[in-house]
Amino acid sequence: MGCGVRASLDFFFNPRSVAVVGASRTPGKVGYELLRNLKEFYKGIIYPVNPKAKEILGLKVYPNLKSIPDEVDVAVIVVPAPKVIDVARDAGEKGVKGLIVISGGFKEVGPEGAKLEGELIKVVRSYGMRLIGPNCVGVYVPKTGMNTLFLPPDRQGFPGHGFIAFRSQSGAFGSAMHDWAAMRGLGISKFVSYGNKADVSDEELLLYFRDDPDTYVIAEYIESVEDGRKFFMALKETTPYKPVVILKAGRTEAGARAAASHTGALAGQDAVYDAAFKQSGVIRAYGMEDLFDLSLALGLQPPAKGDRVAVLTVGGGSGVMTADALNELGLKVPRLSDETVNKLRKVLLPIASPYNPVDVTGSAVDDHLIDSIEILLRSGEVDAVVWLPYYMVPGITPELNKRFMKVVKEVFRELGYPIPIVGVATGGEYTAHYAKEAESMGIPMYISPERAARAIKALVDYGRWLSRIKELDSYLERYMRRIGL
Amino acid sequence: MGCGVRASLDFFFNPRSVAVVGASRTPGKVGYELLRNLKEFYKGIIYPVNPKAKEILGLKVYPNLKSIPDEVDVAVIVVPAPKVIDVARDAGEKGVKGLIVISGGFKEVGPEGAKLEGELIKVVRSYGMRLIGPNCVGVYVPKTGMNTLFLPPDRQGFPGHGFIAFRSQSGAFGSAMHDWAAMRGLGISKFVSYGNKADVSDEELLLYFRDDPDTYVIAEYIESVEDGRKFFMALKETTPYKPVVILKAGRTEAGARAAASHTGALAGQDAVYDAAFKQSGVIRAYGMEDLFDLSLALGLQPPAKGDRVAVLTVGGGSGVMTADALNELGLKVPRLSDETVNKLRKVLLPIASPYNPVDVTGSAVDDHLIDSIEILLRSGEVDAVVWLPYYMVPGITPELNKRFMKVVKEVFRELGYPIPIVGVATGGEYTAHYAKEAESMGIPMYISPERAARAIKALVDYGRWLSRIKELDSYLERYMRRIGL
Repeated sequence: MGCGVRASLDFFFNPRSVAVVGASRTPGKVGYELLRNLKEFYKGIIYPVNPKAKEILGLKVYPNLKSIPDEVDVAVIVVPAPKVIDVARDAGEKGVKGLIVISGGFKEVGPEGAKLEGELIKVVRSYGMRLIGPNCVGVYVPKTGMNTLFLPPDRQGFPGHGFIAFRSQSGAFGSAMHDWAAMRGLGISKFVSYGNKADVSDEELLLYFRDDPDTYVIAEYIESVEDGRKFFMALKETTPYKPVVILKAGRTEAGARAAASHTGALAGQDAVYDAAFKQSGVIRAYGMEDLFDLSLALGLQPPAKGDRVAVLTVGGGSGVMTADALNELGLKVPRLSDETVNKLRKVLLPIASPYNPVDVTGSAVDDHLIDSIEILLRSGEVDAVVWLPYYMVPGITPELNKRFMKVVKEVFRELGYPIPIVGVATGGEYTAHYAKEAESMGIPMYISPERAARAIKALVDYGRWLSRIKELDSYLERYMRRIGL
Repeated sequence: MGCGVRASLDFFFNPRSVAVVGASRTPGKVGYELLRNLKEFYKGIIYPVNPKAKEILGLKVYPNLKSIPDEVDVAVIVVPAPKVIDVARDAGEKGVKGLIVISGGFKEVGPEGAKLEGELIKVVRSYGMRLIGPNCVGVYVPKTGMNTLFLPPDRQGFPGHGFIAFRSQSGAFGSAMHDWAAMRGLGISKFVSYGNKADVSDEELLLYFRDDPDTYVIAEYIESVEDGRKFFMALKETTPYKPVVILKAGRTEAGARAAASHTGALAGQDAVYDAAFKQSGVIRAYGMEDLFDLSLALGLQPPAKGDRVAVLTVGGGSGVMTADALNELGLKVPRLSDETVNKLRKVLLPIASPYNPVDVTGSAVDDHLIDSIEILLRSGEVDAVVWLPYYMVPGITPELNKRFMKVVKEVFRELGYPIPIVGVATGGEYTAHYAKEAESMGIPMYISPERAARAIKALVDYGRWLSRIKELDSYLERYMRRIGL
């Protein structure tokens, strides 16, 4: 894993100082809203730039970039497109390292905009700067507070620090997903919406995320990539180390038509993308929720060594639905050996079902789930587990998650390798509270069996890929270290 | 639509008085928890029965059913299985109309339990009573407060009154879905979990819901039905009037195996069910969330007259994803005529896309969405609409939903028929607030394009079915009356 990409892009995500060129005094304008968000989140120094203002939001304003007395790592530019070139030249003179051009009015509006974009690239390159955008919402990094998103916090939530790096070709979708992730309690390491991708490329960002220690999994929404071959090579260099989940839109005739008028993506290329994803170990997501469902599982859990899945449930019906969902995805829900069935029978209630699904029933207490998971993990007969703890039933106590995780880790330590576990918790606030607790301990929890089954499928597929390229064992070793075993 | 079934089962859902036989003083026991919930919700008279207690939860306790001085409509029975027969006989002598037997220990535990269940049925029939259960969680009716669920309200939420009748063969799944529905803000008209189905049958409950004026749509979770032919006939008598959505579990080999050990459902019958559903106009759901997603759409919106869908969006990427999702389900996202495109172009921003998806862009204001929906609905080129309002963007105001619905209703009035609309609102609290408002006005709102597309598919499929049996026009007429047009 080289360090070149990491060093060359890091200032965008962790700048020591940021200038906002086009800062505005008028609430509602992008130049105001962006500055307000940045001020609220960012921990470094901010230099608003506007020749007509002295102070905005309590910050001293500079008439231009050159008049700023200190170094500027990143200039965020929100002035109208025709003025961007001059600002970029100023930035170059000033020694700014990177530009994030929020402004639209470039390639996406036609030939004249494309010409402007060409000039912009020339200026950027001539000064050795880097550029994200134009026509984008930029970056958001919870850890450093770097934030160029401009929707007001009363309309859009911002997720906290986490392990998912998220890249979106669509700014609006990116914002909406931030908002949703914040409510869902999902954290992200870095977000980039890179608009027209005039300079910093698909593959550079991918490799940057690969080398980013805060990122465990890379989630992307794309409609097209600029250079398919380079991107494919970068994917192959990434997936041995970190899972990549891609939601590629424009899969159908209508979708491709829509993508063409949205980002100018070429229609009819989906089969090419699909083949490239398959040959580079990419996990493909098929929807908005799916993208984050799968990323959550791949970020928190290890890949599976095989496709035999055990279902451990408190609710019989949910066990049936889970078995259906797993089977429909081509995964096995195998019958357990007589030996394992007998071991389970000994620890369970007489009305419980010791087969697979293991149904401890609504009369269960914590011990039934804990004893069962130990037997299942030690059996050598399962490669992954879906558990459905039904926190709401009378016999389940608030101690369940802690005790469950303790046993799971003990078994992993003895086995010397991990077995992936995902959970299902259907319900309201009480259930959501304990589901969140389980997630904070490393087990992704889904609202329905069907979503948990898709998560397991992703872990099986990624394990199969790593196994094929002979990287599974080293990945699992790194995973064990990461969870402290 | 006959009235026989309605009259003969109504006391279960709207009883004037309820006895709880096996009421307990001990918190944590079913006989206590159930009584506490009933007392909190139920508006009629409650008679706890327990020979060893004088008062529980402030209610006078009776030693047996016969000692209750007034009439008893329903006896809820939670005593151990071997004692249930005697209680049932007492109830018969007392003139009780219906029994809800929560207690397990009958057919589901083996031959001896089955014998006990046979005796119970004999007693029930000999007195002309009706029986829900045994081995069930019973009923919940928000409107009357009739509630035999026993999970404590601090662990499980209860949904308010709404238009979805929900029947579940699994008690735990039923409870979990209540909890989830309460948090999601979905209302239900009636809930039944009928366990072993010893007396009141699948088809009776279906027809009861068909004739229930509070129910607009019937949602069912089943693993099997007792009498397939009778159920099929009842479905055919129901779907001309109300949509029926069924989540049938045990679809796969592993699922069928699990269902067999859960409720004794016969394996390998899924193809038979599938054919029966197709031939009776049932909309089949394929997951927990799907069951309620589809029911919400079918309850709130009219069926579609065709499969041409327009997408009206504020976010370009979400528009692409919606087009993909619709196309993948076999629905059309047609190109609009030049005439319609020109009309749209006139009312939209220059950067907007007037094709299908109609992308008003993140710079849009309310008027762009309102003018567009009017043009689309009047065009004669679309049979259904997915709109993605992105409440979070600066130009969209809190007045959008009201103004949008006003225009929609005006157009429907002029056209003389309705066109289904469902929405997508991805985001956090701000977005959820306005999505909920839109739902309260009749437009179901989903968190993702993929789920909205499935809802549209259900509306198209149901429309196709009604058209095939020549009931579409009369259904649409009733729908117009229901929404006051």
